[in-house]
Amino acid sequence: MSTYRGKRWLIADRPLGRELRDADFRLDEEEVSSPAQGQVLVRTAYLALDPAQKGFMENVASYANPTDVGSVMPGTGVGHVIESRAGAFEVGSVVSGNFGWREYAIVDAANLEAVPKDLPPSAALGVLGVSGKTAYFGLLHVGKPRPGDVLVISGAAGAVGSVVGQIGKLAGCKVIGIAGGASKCEWLVQELGFDAAIDYKNEKVRSRLRELAPKGIDVFFDNVGGSILNDCLSRIAPGARIVICGGISRYNADPRDAAAIPPGPQNYFNIVFTNATIQGFLVHHYAEHYATAQQRLTAWLRNGQLRNHEDVLDGFERAPQALMRLFSGANRGKQVLRVAAAGQAQS
Amino acid sequence: MSTYRGKRWLIADRPLGRELRDADFRLDEEEVSSPAQGQVLVRTAYLALDPAQKGFMENVASYANPTDVGSVMPGTGVGHVIESRAGAFEVGSVVSGNFGWREYAIVDAANLEAVPKDLPPSAALGVLGVSGKTAYFGLLHVGKPRPGDVLVISGAAGAVGSVVGQIGKLAGCKVIGIAGGASKCEWLVQELGFDAAIDYKNEKVRSRLRELAPKGIDVFFDNVGGSILNDCLSRIAPGARIVICGGISRYNADPRDAAAIPPGPQNYFNIVFTNATIQGFLVHHYAEHYATAQQRLTAWLRNGQLRNHEDVLDGFERAPQALMRLFSGANRGKQVLRVAAAGQAQS
Repeated sequence: MSTYRGKRWLIADRPLGRELRDADFRLDEEEVSSPAQGQVLVRTAYLALDPAQKGFMENVASYANPTDVGSVMPGTGVGHVIESRAGAFEVGSVVSGNFGWREYAIVDAANLEAVPKDLPPSAALGVLGVSGKTAYFGLLHVGKPRPGDVLVISGAAGAVGSVVGQIGKLAGCKVIGIAGGASKCEWLVQELGFDAAIDYKNEKVRSRLRELAPKGIDVFFDNVGGSILNDCLSRIAPGARIVICGGISRYNADPRDAAAIPPGPQNYFNIVFTNATIQGFLVHHYAEHYATAQQRLTAWLRNGQLRNHEDVLDGFERAPQALMRLFSGANRGKQVLRVAAAGQAQS
Repeated sequence: MSTYRGKRWLIADRPLGRELRDADFRLDEEEVSSPAQGQVLVRTAYLALDPAQKGFMENVASYANPTDVGSVMPGTGVGHVIESRAGAFEVGSVVSGNFGWREYAIVDAANLEAVPKDLPPSAALGVLGVSGKTAYFGLLHVGKPRPGDVLVISGAAGAVGSVVGQIGKLAGCKVIGIAGGASKCEWLVQELGFDAAIDYKNEKVRSRLRELAPKGIDVFFDNVGGSILNDCLSRIAPGARIVICGGISRYNADPRDAAAIPPGPQNYFNIVFTNATIQGFLVHHYAEHYATAQQRLTAWLRNGQLRNHEDVLDGFERAPQALMRLFSGANRGKQVLRVAAAGQAQS
């Protein structure tokens, strides 16, 4: 029986109504001893970063467990089992789960999933994780694309958007991504097989949409909100489905302060003339279909129809910076943190 | 063969980006002679008023026929056939159709519908007209109410809203209307059988909704937009359906001027946490189901389950005033114009 000394990140302040900053997080150390019956001890290999984590820190996401200032930052990771008192997971196996931001975590086996050995461990955080499932259900169950549809995606170079576009190609759509910067746009077209991309930082979204989708947008998958949502609503086709998945343009506003929240899309009324639908969703609403989604995403990943793209930052100490990258639009694909040389075992 | 001298209203100006005014209309007279083969000559008894008519005058409604300044104001009416060269309609029968704003109209029989003799003629303009069908399809096909659902309606005392609430009661919903003024609210509850009403001019919509619908709104039928839509979006239940039927708060904005259009609902993002849907519709999208709707609405009207409420203004010369009443919220139920003593026959 060993004791491990590992680092962890605590929530030091709530970033309500503002951008994240270093002082919102506090690094400390903890002693982790042995798992109890039914638990395993995991050494974290990767942590996943997700915009929703800012909401968890703010404690305003009604669908998530409440968080306390001073508690360990919640977060999903993959890691290696280094001690096991659960028959389903032997030492050395790769697992994913909500470890929190810690180098060593004791986790109930019931809350873990095994990661297939033939896939890169971090795929469980991207294409096979919450991001991939969000893309899968948001596009296929909410957006309901048909072959020949024009599919437009905002935040297209992000963890979810980059998978939505790839699944959209599998579904026979013409796929147009909206992203910030020429290099992201080139990446979408050259690497991910998007048909076209619009650089919202340097191009006029509305006039580019008019050129690229002269008959209008059939499915719009929105991760951004704000003026991009509004511009897309001005170009929807009859019967369009608008999928509201995220709203990164809103996440720094204080939800308790109505004046701080950005205005809604003034073009919403176009859905009347087009008999269109705007639908929101959270991925856990589709939990009963997770197994099917996981099977398909895994098969697509194995046969190369879907590519897992990660943006890797190294070093446990840089977890807050990794999270902040999501809000500055720095990441391309899934932002993960690779947790280097964890603390040493102590006898 | 007779010639009739009748009055008509012409479009004199387009009310783009502003309220309607008298100078937008010009009254003149015309000679109407005999119908050609397949046509009938109708003497108008009632004209229906509808907010969409302002859009027709502006020539911005892409789904409607274009209008010219100087042409006869388009509009639906009911009237009596006084000469017929169409076998389906004999002299004396009551018909409805798009006569335009004229005392005498020659209309192709193919564009007319017979009005059942046992029903008040003007019912064809209200419950059995476009307003009733809009209520029927918007609620039943888009809103999809289930017994026990909380149904909230804005513009509840209007032509559409007052029918939506009554059909909502038939569907087993708890029906809450939002209207302007205590007397309209009392009318909704006392006369139409709504469960409750909120007077948005004198009450706080959001806190009243919290009291009346503590578990949230299942179906919201919106005729208004603006802050009422936003307030209702703050109180939606999981799986809510928001039906966008109208947006009277927007209709005086110039659609060519983005700065003039009111902001969209900043609370739209609540549909993410509730897996809710916002859907727009135009009634003509459901044309293939008109016969069924008409049969049911007629049956409900005959057996007293549905009441046709009209707000009648008298006198052909007051047609513009009747239309303006819709935008000041003066009407209760369907606004119609009763066309008194039409011009005399001349031999």
